Amino acid sequence: MSGENCLAGLKILDLTQFEAGPSCTEALAWMGADVVKVENPRVGDPGRVSGGKAPHDALYFLQYNANKRSMAINLKDPRGLELVKELAKNADVMIENFAPGAIERLGLGYDVIKAINPAIIFCQVKGFGTGSPYEKNLAFDMIAQACGGLMSVTGEEDGPPCKPGATIGDTGTGMLMAVSILGAYVRRLRTGQGEHLQVAMQDAILHYIRNAFAYMERTDGKAAPRAGSKTVGGGNPPIGVYPCKGGGPNDYVYIYTSAANSEHWTRLLKVMGREDLIGDARFANPAARTEHREEVDRIVSEWTIQHDKHTAMELVGSATIPAGAVLDTRELADDPTFLQRGIRQTMKHPEAGDYVMSGWPVRFGGRPPEVTPAPLLGEHGAEVLAEWLGYDAGKIADLKSNEVVV
Amino acid sequence: MSGENCLAGLKILDLTQFEAGPSCTEALAWMGADVVKVENPRVGDPGRVSGGKAPHDALYFLQYNANKRSMAINLKDPRGLELVKELAKNADVMIENFAPGAIERLGLGYDVIKAINPAIIFCQVKGFGTGSPYEKNLAFDMIAQACGGLMSVTGEEDGPPCKPGATIGDTGTGMLMAVSILGAYVRRLRTGQGEHLQVAMQDAILHYIRNAFAYMERTDGKAAPRAGSKTVGGGNPPIGVYPCKGGGPNDYVYIYTSAANSEHWTRLLKVMGREDLIGDARFANPAARTEHREEVDRIVSEWTIQHDKHTAMELVGSATIPAGAVLDTRELADDPTFLQRGIRQTMKHPEAGDYVMSGWPVRFGGRPPEVTPAPLLGEHGAEVLAEWLGYDAGKIADLKSNEVVV
Repeated sequence: MSGENCLAGLKILDLTQFEAGPSCTEALAWMGADVVKVENPRVGDPGRVSGGKAPHDALYFLQYNANKRSMAINLKDPRGLELVKELAKNADVMIENFAPGAIERLGLGYDVIKAINPAIIFCQVKGFGTGSPYEKNLAFDMIAQACGGLMSVTGEEDGPPCKPGATIGDTGTGMLMAVSILGAYVRRLRTGQGEHLQVAMQDAILHYIRNAFAYMERTDGKAAPRAGSKTVGGGNPPIGVYPCKGGGPNDYVYIYTSAANSEHWTRLLKVMGREDLIGDARFANPAARTEHREEVDRIVSEWTIQHDKHTAMELVGSATIPAGAVLDTRELADDPTFLQRGIRQTMKHPEAGDYVMSGWPVRFGGRPPEVTPAPLLGEHGAEVLAEWLGYDAGKIADLKSNEVVV
Repeated sequence: MSGENCLAGLKILDLTQFEAGPSCTEALAWMGADVVKVENPRVGDPGRVSGGKAPHDALYFLQYNANKRSMAINLKDPRGLELVKELAKNADVMIENFAPGAIERLGLGYDVIKAINPAIIFCQVKGFGTGSPYEKNLAFDMIAQACGGLMSVTGEEDGPPCKPGATIGDTGTGMLMAVSILGAYVRRLRTGQGEHLQVAMQDAILHYIRNAFAYMERTDGKAAPRAGSKTVGGGNPPIGVYPCKGGGPNDYVYIYTSAANSEHWTRLLKVMGREDLIGDARFANPAARTEHREEVDRIVSEWTIQHDKHTAMELVGSATIPAGAVLDTRELADDPTFLQRGIRQTMKHPEAGDYVMSGWPVRFGGRPPEVTPAPLLGEHGAEVLAEWLGYDAGKIADLKSNEVVV
């Protein structure tokens, strides 16, 4: 009852790079798909050298390409292009996230591949959608976050737009494509039908900020504003991060009191030893607390600052008021339960040595799928030629000596 | 070649509420799954009244429950619980996101359901994972974002932790569960095997901030810091949002110059008419520009402030330097191409009237799946009893007159 064999037999020809595409195919690899990454023989996926050249593949690359195989094919050689077509003929899925128009210029566009393999699920990730005013523009994660509205609703109320520390433009998009690929694959198993899937990173961002759109529509139609650590529109006070003992950049506790649950505020007053304020008209209901938001925040802060964030989380949470310490990446990396539970796993890589990375967080029968290290550039070329195409040793040697496959 | 029939025949018994669960099942409904939402007869999914009681279901609810059917079942009546079991016997997937322990206390936990239907894919979304120090804690989106590390890497460099304007704890988690459900379903089609899927919102957050972890690991092991609008660690200057003409809260353009592409900086200097700085030692390479970051930002800002954000995006983008205007939700809602392309669609709801919502952004054969309005509370009770269980009119009337199904 584990997840690694769910997608056994699903062959994915993966021409993606960086993150939006690789995060998608990695998720499918974690569930057992056979993902063959096609890379250029010179440097491979540019993610391998992200953050500057190192003696080994960058951790950036390693964490988005686990559980895959790599094949280095020279696409400047016509025999390399022919080889990709042979692989596409044998694949269930082909996916790319090159710049707009690039795959078509290579002669590997959907029309070409569909003629070879009508049942293929052909997938494309771009920055902007066909028909968008920006359809020819390049995009990276941050550009998608800017143009997709997410930065406009992230940051302090009176500050500039902020970029969330999560790569929603990349991994967020990759997850939507992964869902779609499996949807199309389920139908293909039933009907044999192929599909052409396309997603734009700007469009994908909209999927993750629907609350901001809902807020705008139900108020005055003005753009949803930034709200610091509060929910869109400001939420019901008290809400947001409150400072805790220690004074470090992440010594804060999040406290959420719901407008729908009037008990939250009363219980919080008890936790804080401020029973004197129970029934006080200034704070008696959400509207009153919104009017006196600054005072509410001051009262709560005066209490939270006396406790470290873990204690504050414990005390508030025990009163069944939603609360959470703001944990940083160091604290999370040091929490042994993530390793024990398999949410983070230790890799043994032939060049990079040991490193810990986050795997697929969904548990199958109690356990996340097992993570295996990302491939070296071209590590599996011969193996894939034999398995997917049935090539014999002579034919493989010929491709290698001609540097079609490296 | 559209997406709506991909999952035809997949029956999902959906006991989820608010967003993490509903966003998951909605994605599957958009691809054709038959999602039957089981709600309590009194108010239904509390998301229906999110943002305060209104004469109709809240837009919050409407946008996370499109393309589903609703059935109102009284779970306080033993006959209601029996009915859920009957439905579970006929379902392929059952999913819940109640507070920890609640589904088991109802007598509808995995052990019970598995005994009835061993092939079921039983799915649970919680705030924290089993074995985590917080496993019994409640969580909402913002608590997961605090405890999952995302807030620690979002916000200004010297400011407090910020909450991204995207609901990564909710919709971000929902997408990971959707991928996993389809993975398990593909295996089930092949082998008949059921599965127990569990995901914690805190764990899911880690999946979206892997770059922050990679940055921490490849530097000094200290927690990844906040970086305003820049990428984790600060990136390669110039990077981030720069102020544009207009002075409004979102009059900014994002400019990204890559450390890997030295041409970006030179091209930008040309766009800005600052050829005089080409070759200037202070800015000649990424390290030099990082050292003179403030001056670099000043030079770029002096140019961007002379242009509105759209012009700045156009001018910088035309020089093939990644650039993007910071667009707000109003501007996005007013861009007609989202409606033309089906990324946003207009609903006709019997009570809420017409409204526009974002649908599934992935295009199948050029077009996103068609969105249909969320159901009224209990709208499809009789229909589902007939279709899923084959109940006749008399039996259905009996359940209704006894208020087991409302």
